[in-house]
Amino acid sequence: MTLRYRIFIGQTKDFIEKYFSSLESDKRIVKYIIMVMLAHVKTLMRQGIIPTSHGEEIVRILKDLAKSDGEQLYKWIEQSKASYEDAFEALEAYLYEFAEADAGYIAIGRSRNDHIATVLRMYLRDSIIEILNTLLDVRESLLRKATELRNVIIPFFTHGQVAQCGSASTYFISYEHTLANIWRLLYQGLDLLRENPLGSGAASGSIINLDRESVGAMLCLDPSPIPPYYSTGSRLFILHYLNALSLLMLELSRLAEDMIFLNSLIPNALKVPVEHIATSSIMPHKRNLVTMEIVRANAAKVCGLAFGAQSIYKGLPYGYNLDLQEINNVAMQSIDIVQKTLNIIKDFINGLSIDENLVQKFIEDKPCWSSDLVEYIALTSGRPAREVYLNLAKLFKDCGAIDSACISKVLSHFNLTPEDIWNMVKNRPMEINMKRVLEDAWTRLERDRSNVKNVSLAIEKCTSTLLS
Amino acid sequence: MTLRYRIFIGQTKDFIEKYFSSLESDKRIVKYIIMVMLAHVKTLMRQGIIPTSHGEEIVRILKDLAKSDGEQLYKWIEQSKASYEDAFEALEAYLYEFAEADAGYIAIGRSRNDHIATVLRMYLRDSIIEILNTLLDVRESLLRKATELRNVIIPFFTHGQVAQCGSASTYFISYEHTLANIWRLLYQGLDLLRENPLGSGAASGSIINLDRESVGAMLCLDPSPIPPYYSTGSRLFILHYLNALSLLMLELSRLAEDMIFLNSLIPNALKVPVEHIATSSIMPHKRNLVTMEIVRANAAKVCGLAFGAQSIYKGLPYGYNLDLQEINNVAMQSIDIVQKTLNIIKDFINGLSIDENLVQKFIEDKPCWSSDLVEYIALTSGRPAREVYLNLAKLFKDCGAIDSACISKVLSHFNLTPEDIWNMVKNRPMEINMKRVLEDAWTRLERDRSNVKNVSLAIEKCTSTLLS
Amino acid sequence: MTLRYRIFIGQTKDFIEKYFSSLESDKRIVKYIIMVMLAHVKTLMRQGIIPTSHGEEIVRILKDLAKSDGEQLYKWIEQSKASYEDAFEALEAYLYEFAEADAGYIAIGRSRNDHIATVLRMYLRDSIIEILNTLLDVRESLLRKATELRNVIIPFFTHGQVAQCGSASTYFISYEHTLANIWRLLYQGLDLLRENPLGSGAASGSIINLDRESVGAMLCLDPSPIPPYYSTGSRLFILHYLNALSLLMLELSRLAEDMIFLNSLIPNALKVPVEHIATSSIMPHKRNLVTMEIVRANAAKVCGLAFGAQSIYKGLPYGYNLDLQEINNVAMQSIDIVQKTLNIIKDFINGLSIDENLVQKFIEDKPCWSSDLVEYIALTSGRPAREVYLNLAKLFKDCGAIDSACISKVLSHFNLTPEDIWNMVKNRPMEINMKRVLEDAWTRLERDRSNVKNVSLAIEKCTSTLLS
Amino acid sequence: MTLRYRIFIGQTKDFIEKYFSSLESDKRIVKYIIMVMLAHVKTLMRQGIIPTSHGEEIVRILKDLAKSDGEQLYKWIEQSKASYEDAFEALEAYLYEFAEADAGYIAIGRSRNDHIATVLRMYLRDSIIEILNTLLDVRESLLRKATELRNVIIPFFTHGQVAQCGSASTYFISYEHTLANIWRLLYQGLDLLRENPLGSGAASGSIINLDRESVGAMLCLDPSPIPPYYSTGSRLFILHYLNALSLLMLELSRLAEDMIFLNSLIPNALKVPVEHIATSSIMPHKRNLVTMEIVRANAAKVCGLAFGAQSIYKGLPYGYNLDLQEINNVAMQSIDIVQKTLNIIKDFINGLSIDENLVQKFIEDKPCWSSDLVEYIALTSGRPAREVYLNLAKLFKDCGAIDSACISKVLSHFNLTPEDIWNMVKNRPMEINMKRVLEDAWTRLERDRSNVKNVSLAIEKCTSTLLS
Repeated sequence: MTLRYRIFIGQTKDFIEKYFSSLESDKRIVKYIIMVMLAHVKTLMRQGIIPTSHGEEIVRILKDLAKSDGEQLYKWIEQSKASYEDAFEALEAYLYEFAEADAGYIAIGRSRNDHIATVLRMYLRDSIIEILNTLLDVRESLLRKATELRNVIIPFFTHGQVAQCGSASTYFISYEHTLANIWRLLYQGLDLLRENPLGSGAASGSIINLDRESVGAMLCLDPSPIPPYYSTGSRLFILHYLNALSLLMLELSRLAEDMIFLNSLIPNALKVPVEHIATSSIMPHKRNLVTMEIVRANAAKVCGLAFGAQSIYKGLPYGYNLDLQEINNVAMQSIDIVQKTLNIIKDFINGLSIDENLVQKFIEDKPCWSSDLVEYIALTSGRPAREVYLNLAKLFKDCGAIDSACISKVLSHFNLTPEDIWNMVKNRPMEINMKRVLEDAWTRLERDRSNVKNVSLAIEKCTSTLLS
Repeated sequence: MTLRYRIFIGQTKDFIEKYFSSLESDKRIVKYIIMVMLAHVKTLMRQGIIPTSHGEEIVRILKDLAKSDGEQLYKWIEQSKASYEDAFEALEAYLYEFAEADAGYIAIGRSRNDHIATVLRMYLRDSIIEILNTLLDVRESLLRKATELRNVIIPFFTHGQVAQCGSASTYFISYEHTLANIWRLLYQGLDLLRENPLGSGAASGSIINLDRESVGAMLCLDPSPIPPYYSTGSRLFILHYLNALSLLMLELSRLAEDMIFLNSLIPNALKVPVEHIATSSIMPHKRNLVTMEIVRANAAKVCGLAFGAQSIYKGLPYGYNLDLQEINNVAMQSIDIVQKTLNIIKDFINGLSIDENLVQKFIEDKPCWSSDLVEYIALTSGRPAREVYLNLAKLFKDCGAIDSACISKVLSHFNLTPEDIWNMVKNRPMEINMKRVLEDAWTRLERDRSNVKNVSLAIEKCTSTLLS
Repeated sequence: MTLRYRIFIGQTKDFIEKYFSSLESDKRIVKYIIMVMLAHVKTLMRQGIIPTSHGEEIVRILKDLAKSDGEQLYKWIEQSKASYEDAFEALEAYLYEFAEADAGYIAIGRSRNDHIATVLRMYLRDSIIEILNTLLDVRESLLRKATELRNVIIPFFTHGQVAQCGSASTYFISYEHTLANIWRLLYQGLDLLRENPLGSGAASGSIINLDRESVGAMLCLDPSPIPPYYSTGSRLFILHYLNALSLLMLELSRLAEDMIFLNSLIPNALKVPVEHIATSSIMPHKRNLVTMEIVRANAAKVCGLAFGAQSIYKGLPYGYNLDLQEINNVAMQSIDIVQKTLNIIKDFINGLSIDENLVQKFIEDKPCWSSDLVEYIALTSGRPAREVYLNLAKLFKDCGAIDSACISKVLSHFNLTPEDIWNMVKNRPMEINMKRVLEDAWTRLERDRSNVKNVSLAIEKCTSTLLS
Repeated sequence: MTLRYRIFIGQTKDFIEKYFSSLESDKRIVKYIIMVMLAHVKTLMRQGIIPTSHGEEIVRILKDLAKSDGEQLYKWIEQSKASYEDAFEALEAYLYEFAEADAGYIAIGRSRNDHIATVLRMYLRDSIIEILNTLLDVRESLLRKATELRNVIIPFFTHGQVAQCGSASTYFISYEHTLANIWRLLYQGLDLLRENPLGSGAASGSIINLDRESVGAMLCLDPSPIPPYYSTGSRLFILHYLNALSLLMLELSRLAEDMIFLNSLIPNALKVPVEHIATSSIMPHKRNLVTMEIVRANAAKVCGLAFGAQSIYKGLPYGYNLDLQEINNVAMQSIDIVQKTLNIIKDFINGLSIDENLVQKFIEDKPCWSSDLVEYIALTSGRPAREVYLNLAKLFKDCGAIDSACISKVLSHFNLTPEDIWNMVKNRPMEINMKRVLEDAWTRLERDRSNVKNVSLAIEKCTSTLLS
């Protein structure tokens, strides 16, 4: 006989059990389910709550399962053709199969509700660390471009129109800056993942006094107690990360939008890595930035997933409700999309270059220095800037269209040459300070890299304690 | 050599192509991709645009593929270990493999952009018809309960509290009514799925004058021309259905909420089919309505999917953008969830019964007839209803708590017995008319069933023409 | 003393009552609150349930209030400095003030729950009719442009890049087509607004047998009974419209995106009405399409409002919950934004023109006819289209960059002149059929206009019966 | 003549300007607009960029305006009946009116794009500090209840059903804990609000080398440079806070849900402050927790606003787009709702008490100690917990319904009295440790209060420097 919790409830039907079972999506977290169970059993043995004679075999089996990251469990499920509500039930059935009566000793001092809350924190922590690392790579790619392209002048846009010109460094360092801010938000959130819910029982506690120091040391969690109704009923930590991942994707989507837009606006000026391009099946001239389009779409998807999760959460009374189970899958989808997208962006930025001549030609007939000119005249003449502005506005107005001819007229009105203008642009304090700004950014990057590395090392140490 | 559109663009990398390829999710629609291609080729052959000598083999291969619903194509892809951007490219490569140079003749008078817009309408039409049918079953289950439970008095709630009492019929017919309204919205939307985009080219048309009558007859689409930029650039028809499915799920979620709430409020009064219940792994007394919890969560997911799709769509300039491809998968997820949920609800309602005694006991000490009493006294005494209301409010206030004792006091104040009260409730015009209301609802159900059946028959006829 | 329902509950505090009171936002619907009350009282008088002697004064006061669209009520509230839960309570207090004890007779056969459900349908019906009318104007503007610009060739885009060329008619008729589809969805939904919830009581009915024919005739609602729990507990009709308005805004947002994009891509080619442009405060050369930017942002807002409303709804058990009140305000915001946006779009389109020369110059060096060329060569040579495609792809590839020189080389390879090419484009079947397509669209527009006009006339007639 | 930037563009129409103008919603931030302008002018005067002779008058006028928090400006706008694009243009027009030509000197070294980005950070900082303070009050209220109700045993729920029992402290400390976590997220985000965008120009910088130390000291911002395209084009800092406020509201919504649910489940057991209750207009027995219903609805609204803002942001190319303006208003709405809701929750919790007897009576016939019993028997007998669990499950199964009789039978089976059971519950390690847990929470509260106080003091000091 296979262990089923529903033994005294009655049988269910396959299409119904499939509707509420999480067995399929638990595959992604089964590794952590086993690890938490192992820490739990080892701790209870130490505390004498599980007799060593009964616990040893369980520990051996769990270590074995842990080595295969849980794959062995799923193979067994497939072979036995049984269905289960989730990987927890399946794991217990497995233990019964191989450790017989001893398996019965594990069902103390924990419930699925605190167990899963612990598992999800560990899964999320590993996933976020991976994202933090790839995000560091993306930031490095952006910094490298910012450093490389200091002397390339490109247009900057407001309202979707050419507004100012400036060095390409400003473009890439701007994105690096926003990603560094998001990186910090992701990193700060790790606090929420250090909380240890294990031992909280189903809702308001267990009568077992689980040794939190011991569990914490094996799972790399904080030993401080947390209130059990919070432990089992809250998914704040997931919702927070779903939101933070939305922010990350939104910024990447805007980068993608920029690439697609620039590629149309100044044909051939962006040298895009060929792997990111596809063509049309009927218009052989097309060069579509297909990965960037998918980045945009994926940003919307990730936002939709976060919204879905919040809407799941919103109506629920506190405590564990099975609705929460469905948030797990949403989080996994979101994390997957983000990890793939970061790898795409990294590859794209690394392979990107700019054809300076084409860009130069494009901006020649666009007065992307009009605000600098106003300031310059105001500064040098002592006239109020607004007066100069209106003066210049009138000149543009009188041109009819703003084009090369108009620009020549305007410049000669102020006795300036194009060279004068480009010198203004290149000598903005921002451009002069760029070297220092970049250095600071590189320093921040290294500091961030070292911080996340330390977190990883600590976790590895805990895990080796656990599996020892 | 395998056909790849990107042959002159250059190679891509596996992780990049996977990021933008829809090959995996196209599995769900490949059947329609083949059918549309078949209608296209047959029509062009009739029109003499594809020479019969070249077309015949293609038609034969396509019919073969259609018979396997496209599975054969995916088997071939797997065997050849090639990657493709999507099922369109794969299908063309397949044709090249088996029909050699003849395959080259199909790439005229259509693009992937108008082809996919046709395919998605056909996929959605079949899916919506399936949903319409299951929804009819759910409505029938509700009507059956409404008919069966005419004499069972249950509480009705406002603000989450017992407000009035009335027959259970009112409860079930209320849900049937809202689902009938949603059914109508889903059915009316089929108009959008009758439009035929094929022949629109990539954006603004093709030089081929495709015979729209012929294509329409084989695919069951309207022959009227539709503007090509709309054809290829709009996903209004999907977004509309994603929204309508959200509405459907929201109403089912509220039904689920009612079940969970009632089950807690009046323990054991709902006789829920045992297959929908699970218990706790540590609290053996628990009887959780797990399927209903998942229904609630799924409602939120479906809303989130719709929001994600809208957000994908929002920022796009008109015309086809690859972002649109990602909406397909969103729609498939949503449709899947809805179909499964409807089957769950049907099974749940069919197996549901109510323990009248427990409900009766529960409402005994709750004045769920207070508004009826006010009306009754006002009617029979000629006093203003508000005056009676305030009189009754004062009586309740003076009771302290509103309980059995209070109710006895109130009734004796008005010289009424509980029987008088229940007679008022049972003889509300609404209850008296219930028989007619139910008859009308059954009639509407039959009419709706016959309408959707006719649509199905028409489509079958077209398909058999296509495959003949 | 002022009437307050809470008289036996106890006082509240101002900041608390403000938090749950809808008095402020009820201003927008108070007119309908009065109308429904009037229909209710007149009907009950006819039925002898409210004695004529008591009812006449009430009817007189209500007619008076109706004439000021309820403003008089709000003036009185302001003067009396009282607070109320909502306009219903305020209205009843007003009646008490001016009709004294007679006012007490109205509180029978209805509750706020069925009353508000009726009011919201009427408010929404009037709002949607206004939107339908403005949308007809927008469609007319688009059709006029489509008709006017039949000979202007413009680029069409896929993946944000020039794909094909074609007449501007195709552009404008495509938008008209999608808006006509949305128009139909909005119009079909009016069915939901014809339902009459009045008489449903708070949740499961009233003991009064309200004459539904009489109420229906005065409020222009269908006399068929609807289940009372649905009547009072469902907001399906609002959620459906919030969704439909999202779809409308999304399409308008894409139009706005097109305008902003084209304006950047081909400077000065769009002659935009000057009122829709603003400039920068420091860059006098800027010409920002500010209304179009706000259209885009408003589309996102309207989607967010719809999803907020769905999330309000999702977790609720059936029956009336005060949460539903908050959906009203959401709907008002959405409707406001849509009405304003439609007026902006209408003015924008009406004032728009295109500088053909600049557009012509822009497309000269872009092979926006490559798919036509492939089809043409295939058709005329009998070669497979894919072979021709690959041939052309190779030519483009060999060019390096795709520019004027490349285009000349390609055309001469096929012995074609630019004129040949433009003739192909202008003689696509789509372009040839455009006259008929436009005629059909004008016919549909007139039919739609006449349909909505008939609805308006019917409502006016009901209202004059009500106020007579 | 009034200053208008559009002077050379042409006039606009009132309904169009209203559509894109932010003048109305800028009222909420005009105070900060003036402050930033003042810091800018004072700094430029110190740097000699604005001549003291011209700047002094401007400074005087700005200080004057600042004292009225900008109200004076809006009064002037109303009187002059002029329209403006936003408060920036209006402010400049005002300066022109009162300082004449001198006003022209301010338009240097800044644009509206960097100015608004600074203003929004200051507005948000003040708003978040206010929220942090009220949230501390709410946490204090919860902690006070947790401390007060240590000996009151209440039910805890999973799946909407009674699961376990435990002290009410566990309930209130659980919410305090989650709110403390959210508090930390809100507090950590202040980093984003310390960035100083001023001096970034419109997109890629200004030629003025603004003294960042000076500006920073007056506005309490960090002097480090930030990349100008990020400065002007990013709204990450707002989106992050919109998300964090959603999380806060979601947790408060669950609290509200609990209150409504408990109030139905155990009538009269929650002693709710009367100000938060309303009754029905036709069912005088109703006691609706109306504020809690609005809290739930507002949570959904705040989520909808956040997603609206994300959807605005998603499609935008980088740099300033006017779409961003519409996020401001969304943020203001969200902040308003949150502030009001926190005050409601605080008042509600403060006035809340529990009728222990009614709760005790309610749980008597519910085995909310079944998991404790399993653990106890397992511990004391040395039997495997799962075996005990199945034993107990069988006993419950055999009871038929789980009620008082069943409970007696179960307890006597194990030779236990109800007292034994309640002792187990009251002596769970969690309950024993509660004293320390509460002390730690009070300590954390005080530390948090002191941290936010220091931030406030620092800002006050900067402001007094600014206005000196």
